[in-house]
Parts: sequence; structure tokens; C-alpha cells
Amino acid sequence: MTAIQDFQAHIAELSDLLCAISVLKWDARTQMPHGGAETRGYQLATLSRLAQEHFISDKTARLLDAAETAIAGEAADSYLVRGVQQTRQYYEIIGKLPLELVSEKAALEPVSEGVWAEAKKNNDFASFAPYLQQQVDLARRQADAIGYSEHPFDALVFEYEPSMTAAKLRVLFDGLKVGLLPLLRAIVAKSQPLEKNLWTREYPLERQKAFGLEIAQRFGYDLNRGRLDIAPHPFEISFTRQDVRITTRYQPNYFPMALYGTLHETGHALYEQGVDPALTRTALTIDFLGKYPVGGTSYGVHESQSRLWENQIGRSRAFWNAHFDRFQHHFPDVSADVDPEFMYRAVNRVQPSLIRVEADEVTYNLHIMLRVEIELGLMDGSIKVNDLPEIWNAKMGEYLGVTPPDDARGVLQDIHWSGGGFGSFPGYTVGNVMSAQFLDAARRDVGALDDSLAAGDYAPLLGWLTENIYRHGRAFSGSELLIRSTGADLTVEPYLNYLRAKFTDLYGLA
Amino acid sequence: MTAIQDFQAHIAELSDLLCAISVLKWDARTQMPHGGAETRGYQLATLSRLAQEHFISDKTARLLDAAETAIAGEAADSYLVRGVQQTRQYYEIIGKLPLELVSEKAALEPVSEGVWAEAKKNNDFASFAPYLQQQVDLARRQADAIGYSEHPFDALVFEYEPSMTAAKLRVLFDGLKVGLLPLLRAIVAKSQPLEKNLWTREYPLERQKAFGLEIAQRFGYDLNRGRLDIAPHPFEISFTRQDVRITTRYQPNYFPMALYGTLHETGHALYEQGVDPALTRTALTIDFLGKYPVGGTSYGVHESQSRLWENQIGRSRAFWNAHFDRFQHHFPDVSADVDPEFMYRAVNRVQPSLIRVEADEVTYNLHIMLRVEIELGLMDGSIKVNDLPEIWNAKMGEYLGVTPPDDARGVLQDIHWSGGGFGSFPGYTVGNVMSAQFLDAARRDVGALDDSLAAGDYAPLLGWLTENIYRHGRAFSGSELLIRSTGADLTVEPYLNYLRAKFTDLYGLA
Repeated sequence: MTAIQDFQAHIAELSDLLCAISVLKWDARTQMPHGGAETRGYQLATLSRLAQEHFISDKTARLLDAAETAIAGEAADSYLVRGVQQTRQYYEIIGKLPLELVSEKAALEPVSEGVWAEAKKNNDFASFAPYLQQQVDLARRQADAIGYSEHPFDALVFEYEPSMTAAKLRVLFDGLKVGLLPLLRAIVAKSQPLEKNLWTREYPLERQKAFGLEIAQRFGYDLNRGRLDIAPHPFEISFTRQDVRITTRYQPNYFPMALYGTLHETGHALYEQGVDPALTRTALTIDFLGKYPVGGTSYGVHESQSRLWENQIGRSRAFWNAHFDRFQHHFPDVSADVDPEFMYRAVNRVQPSLIRVEADEVTYNLHIMLRVEIELGLMDGSIKVNDLPEIWNAKMGEYLGVTPPDDARGVLQDIHWSGGGFGSFPGYTVGNVMSAQFLDAARRDVGALDDSLAAGDYAPLLGWLTENIYRHGRAFSGSELLIRSTGADLTVEPYLNYLRAKFTDLYGLA
Repeated sequence: MTAIQDFQAHIAELSDLLCAISVLKWDARTQMPHGGAETRGYQLATLSRLAQEHFISDKTARLLDAAETAIAGEAADSYLVRGVQQTRQYYEIIGKLPLELVSEKAALEPVSEGVWAEAKKNNDFASFAPYLQQQVDLARRQADAIGYSEHPFDALVFEYEPSMTAAKLRVLFDGLKVGLLPLLRAIVAKSQPLEKNLWTREYPLERQKAFGLEIAQRFGYDLNRGRLDIAPHPFEISFTRQDVRITTRYQPNYFPMALYGTLHETGHALYEQGVDPALTRTALTIDFLGKYPVGGTSYGVHESQSRLWENQIGRSRAFWNAHFDRFQHHFPDVSADVDPEFMYRAVNRVQPSLIRVEADEVTYNLHIMLRVEIELGLMDGSIKVNDLPEIWNAKMGEYLGVTPPDDARGVLQDIHWSGGGFGSFPGYTVGNVMSAQFLDAARRDVGALDDSLAAGDYAPLLGWLTENIYRHGRAFSGSELLIRSTGADLTVEPYLNYLRAKFTDLYGLA
């Protein structure tokens, strides 16, 4: 075997281990009987430790040295070079983390998450505050260990979105704020209740599933390499591009929860299923840090695809025009008095609310902005943990015009911080912003794209996305993908233009 | 940590890895989309190699030495001592197997199984014969490597049934032959067709599942630590006693396939779920050789429990008297013209046939006997591979009075030999024989056991089995369990008495 083959065989084994861990997690969330939780925890801990030992080993170091020598002279943007480079990059990052920090984090996580769940139930921020303080302290130690030039947050967001920094995020959110706040004010002033009792009707679960799966397959989701299950917190997970699974949840009276949950996860799945087969079991389909699904290059780019398929496609007028007949087919009893235009309006209601995961397209990013601003402050010391409830509520009033009645529906609503996941929230907004840039570029490159979409033919769009994003796996950063395919780095204008056009029309804003 | 704690922590990790492998296998057989097969194969291969490296390591040797010193003075039949002893025993067996033999076997298995599947499809034994010869040669090399005092088969059957040998099996089968052949002849002479068109009726799959699960739970299967899925080849599999899953398959017109498949696997599952919690993640719930489900002590003892619950309980007159009302509840449309006695007779038809897996209680062991006799001959050289079709057909005529019309329904019907699994067939018959000994002992020890069974109350029986068999995990061999709980080693009389009594009555023979 050559040095490259040895290196790739070693990385392929790491990929196998990480995929096995993902299978165990999928099973735990969708199939496992309740009684299996404790021993499943042991199984996951053992496999995770073996994966870590496998990666942070002398063997990896030796194979990596040899591979680096072997790739000299190869093109800098070839998959081969990128795979070796990324392995080196993450090998060094993980090597910088002191073992005691890693084990402190691992030990704190389940305790802190448990305290958070209790605190949320009892609306008792004070009981959670000391644990959140420990997570903040650990995150700052982690940032110091990894190193950064400007802001400690840069070291943390790198794990989720390698091309982002605190400075870039401030510019991004400033731009969004200027565009979104006036739009939201105008919408709220015009808002009226939905005319029909659409959400008291009965949408049988089996038909919701059939409708969602039918649309997912129309989008291009390959059930020969996938399946749809139920989970209380929907997710996509993959064990190589050959086995990419999605989940959703169902409400009997409110089909958009299941439908748009399915289409959101379908977006993630299309990304994973579209990776070049040659990248299977290589460094370019491994998330070395265990932060997001394998295959895609970053949290933000992954989210750009879930949001694109869910919102820009799934919540479009063209979508409801193209698929209203199938909606009627699956729900004949409750669709007689509605038409495509009504459905389009029904699934695009804007309503400032307390809870991020229930937010519409216009308000969603304001929820994220608030969180990222708080994270930046916690990391640079300008915000104190004990002041969080007050700061949270003030920002909710400023951005969304609503005030949480309690911390459970305020600062305690998300699990992320209790697990120490600082740096992940920006990905949601980065993804939204990217999605508009990608779709604009696809419109530019693909002839008559909107005609295809109007006809419910998604192959041209999927082809463009696969060619420009999906097939590359993790070979290029989000920033590189944007520049290569759209000609520009991250910029908010296309996304703001999309929202302005859509909601100006929907709400008759002129 | 003490030497014992270190040892147990190391073995617990091995248990975690083996459980993870089992989760991946369960998923592959019940949930995985078709496209995932190839990469799942890589995942399983990597995890299996890691498990082997973990066990056959210097660390195991060192911890085992220290543990052996630490247990000096402990009771010889304590779980602690047994666990250390068995680890040593299997460590040495695996250590005796040359690496090239192991890798030759691993490489041959998928090829040989593929050729067998084709040969069965095309009724072409000649194309399979060279591969079977290779498997025979490898098995003999394996027996030589492990060592034996009397017959090479002894080294192979040890993997499945440590207390059996070729000599003991000959005695066992001679005894069975003397009892079974006259019984079968008498039954065949009296046999009449079933009076009603029971197997052209419709038994909806969901109701079959509900009925089977209801009975399984009545038997004691804990769904908080289990679940029932569909698989073309039903099996039970467990990932510690906390997560014990079963599968069955459904035919719309013939509910006994699903019901008795479910009850058979429930028997395996009750065993696994009944293991002492203190044995979780220890050497006494690990199958070091990867031959049968974890938890139980041997293939035969495991089969004794599946067959006991399926046949001696599930196919009893008491069962149908106790549960006929539930049968009517689940299948109201098709049960009006039958009664418990008719159902009892319908599920106990004896019919000499070509296929082992479809055989009734009387003929089943004759199918096994034929196979074991052939395996003994292949291993000691008295039977040649090329003569197998002729020998097979002759024995089918002698024991069952039927002659296969082709090799597909003859010597090629089972997958076992193509995978090199010589030594596993005896477990089926050993299990049948043991099941009668155990049930007799339970009747002896438990007051009014038959009254409980007649009332559909299985707690007293499950209690006896758990106390005398299940809780011990792999601490005692099948032979030890028999002697401890029944007072006698393996003996055919209780089983023959059971069959004679049941079928003399059913067929009015005496």
C-alpha cells in the first residue's frame, strides 16, 4: 500500500466507528425501548472513546506525516489534498485541548443538561445559573486552548462554521437588523387572523406521512438510501451517503409541523445523499469534532439546504400551485373550501412569538441574533450570567415586541447552552442567508428554473445544488462554496430581497 | 481500582463493542434501507476487528493474570470465579487459532454463502461442492488447532454446546431414534386431512401482531426492555438484558407462522431478560466466540427455552383453552366455527416433509439427526462431500419416508454449512430434550403448576426458569444447569415421554 492508501484505510476505520455511533444514536432516538437507555449510554461512551483513541494516536500522526509528503505537488484544491489538510487541522485542534478540559466538559454535560431541564420545568433560572457559569468558564478555557486572534468566540464558532468570526457575525447581524426590523413592524401593523378554521381539522397521521414522503421523493430524496421515522425532536442523520435517515413529528390538527419538518430534514438529506461516492469513508465526509451530520461542510451550509428546501421551495406559491392536487388527494375531506393561494398564505403567517423553534421566516433570525449577541458578551465578559434573564427579556422586547412571562419561555427555552454548545446558533442564520445566495445563483445558471419549479420538477435545482455544493462533501468551506458558485462571499442582500419581496406581496405592504 | 475492577471494566468495554455490533446487525436486518448494505458491511468489519483486538490483547492477558490471583479462595461456582475462568478459556481457544486460518475463514464465508445461494436457486450441488469442501477442510484445521481427545467434532460443537461431544451425541440420537421412528410410523398411518379450511381464511397482519404480542407479554416479555419487528428469518437479539428484541414474519392466511415464530423468539427473550442485572456487561453475558445471542449459556440451553415456550406451552391444550377467547377477540370473523380443541389439533399436525424449518415436533429432530450424522462423517472423513446428495436422500427416506425431488429441497436447503457453521445443529435437538427435563423439574418443584398454566398464569413457571436457568447467564454449562435443577444430566426419556403422551392422545394411537 502507498502512504495515501494507508492513510485512507486508517481514516475509513474512523469513519466506520463514527457511523456506528450514529446508528446507535438514531436507534436510541427512534426505536430503542425505554429500558435500554443506561446500557446504550455505556455503549456510546465506549465507542466514542475508541474513536477518539483511534484519531488521536501515534498511528494517525505517522500516517498523516507520510500522506503530507505524498501529496506534495498535487493541486491545492483537490479532494486528496483537502482531505489530508483537514485531518491535520482537526488533529491539531483536538491535540490542543487538555485532557482534563475534555473530561470536565464530558462530565459536566449530562449534569448541566439535567439541571437545565429541571430549571426550565420549575421556571427557576437561579438554580441553573451556577452550571451555566461553569459551561461559560469551560468554553472560555477551550477558546484559550485552541487560540484566536480577535475574539474568543472565533475559536468556538470555528467548530460549526470555519469561515465565520465574531467580527463577521456582527456585520451580518447589523445588516439583517436594518432590513428585518422595519419589515416586521410593517407586517405586524397589517396582520389579520386566518379566515378559516384550518387548524381544527383532522389530518390523519398516515396521510400526513404519505404526503410528506411523496414530496420528499419529488424533491429527490432516495428511499433506497433513506427512511422516515418519528422523533420528538426531528433530525437528519447519515451513516455514509448510502444510508441517510430523516425524522419528523406529527400533530393531528396541524399538518405543517410534520410536512415542513419532513421537508427541512429532506434538505439535509439531499445534501448527504448528494456527496460524491468517491468521498465515502474519507476525511471529507467525517466530522472530526462530532458537531453536525457527516458529509456536509459546516453547520451553516447544511442549514442553508434544509431552509432552502423547507422555506424557499416548500413555502413558495409555486409549491402550492404545483402540489395542491396532491394535498387534496391525501386530505380530500378537509380541502374542499381552500385553494393553493389560501394554503400558501396559511403556511406563511408572520407572528412575533416567544419560542425560536416555532418562529416564522421573518422573526426566526431575530431569535438567533439575540442569542448570538448574548454568546459574544458571555465570551468576552461584557455580559454576566446572572444578568441573562433581564438582558434576554429586554432584547425580546426590542427585536420582537414581546416579553416572556417567565424564564421557561425566555432564557431557559433552548438546551444548547446547558450542553456548552456555544457557537452553534450562528449556523441557523448563516444558513438562511446563504440559501438565498445559492438560489439566486441557481436561477442565474439554470435556464427557466422557475418554470421547472412551477411544474414541480426539482431535478434542475437539485442538479445545480449537487454540482456546486453537495458533491464536494467537506472539501470546501462555506465561504469557498459561496465564492466558487455565486461569485460573492456571505452577503445579506439576496436574503433580505427574498423576504421583502415575498412578504410585501403576502401582506400587501406596497 | 482493584485487579477485579480493572478486569471487569475491560470486559465491560468488550461487552459494549459486541452490543454495538448487535445493534448494527439488528438494524441491517429490520430497518436499514437496501442501499446501506455495503457500507454497513465495512462498519461491522471494523467493529468486529476492534472487538477482537480488544480481547486478544496484552492488556487482557495482564488483567486476566491479575484477576486469577485475586479470585484465589473465592467459591468455585461463584459468578466472579466463573467469569474469570470463562474469559481464560475463550482467550486460550481464540489464541490457538492461527491468524491465517481466521482470515481464510472470514474471506471464504461470504463467497461460499453466495455460491450456495446460487446453487440452491439453480439446484446445482456440483457448483457448491468445492466450496463446501473448503469449509470442511477449514473446520478440520480448526478442530486440529483447538485440539480434542476423541473426535474432531468435539472441538467444533464446544463453541455451541460446551458440555456435548460426538460420543454423547451418538447416544442421544440413538435413544431418540428408537423412540421417534415407531411413533412417527404410527402417526402417519392414522393421519387424516384437517376438516376445516382454516388456512384459506384471512388473518389481518396487525391483529396477528397484536395477538402475538399480547401472549408474549402474558408469558412475561417486558416491552419496556423489548420490541417486536418483522424479519424474513426471525431471530432474537439483545444488547444487554435491558434491550432484548424479537422479530417474526407474517402470512395473511396462516397465522401459526407469525404466532409461533413470536412465541419461539419470546422464549429466547425471556431468557435474556431474566439474567441477573449484576451480570450486565460482565464475562458471564458475553459470547466471546460470537456464535449465539449474549446472555444465555449455550445454543442448546437457549433453544430449550424457545422450544419450551413455543411448543410445550404454546402448542398445548391448556394454552388454547386459556387463550381461545383472546383468539376470538382478535379474529372474530374467522373463529366462529372452531373451538379450543380444534385449534389445539390444528397447530399440532404431524406431517413428514422435506424442509427442516417447517417440521413439526415429532419430525423435527429427525431432520437434525440426519444433519449431525453427516457432519460427524464429514469431520472424521467417513463421508465425502461429493456423496452428500445421495446420502442425504437415503437418510430422508429412512427416517422420514420422503425423498427430495431435487437438491434445492434436499442437501442444499440450509445455509449453515456454506458459512462453515459445523457443530451448531445439535443445539436444536439438545434444546428440545432439555426443555422436557426442565419442565418436568418445574412441575416437581412448583405447586399446582398445571393449574396455573391452565389459567394462563405463567408467573410460577417463569419464576422457576428464571431462578434455575435465566438469572445465571453463562455461569453454568447446560449440563451443570440440568444437574443442579433436575438432578440428572441430559437424558431423552422425559422428552420422549412428552411426545408419546401428547401425540398418542392427539392421534388416538393407543
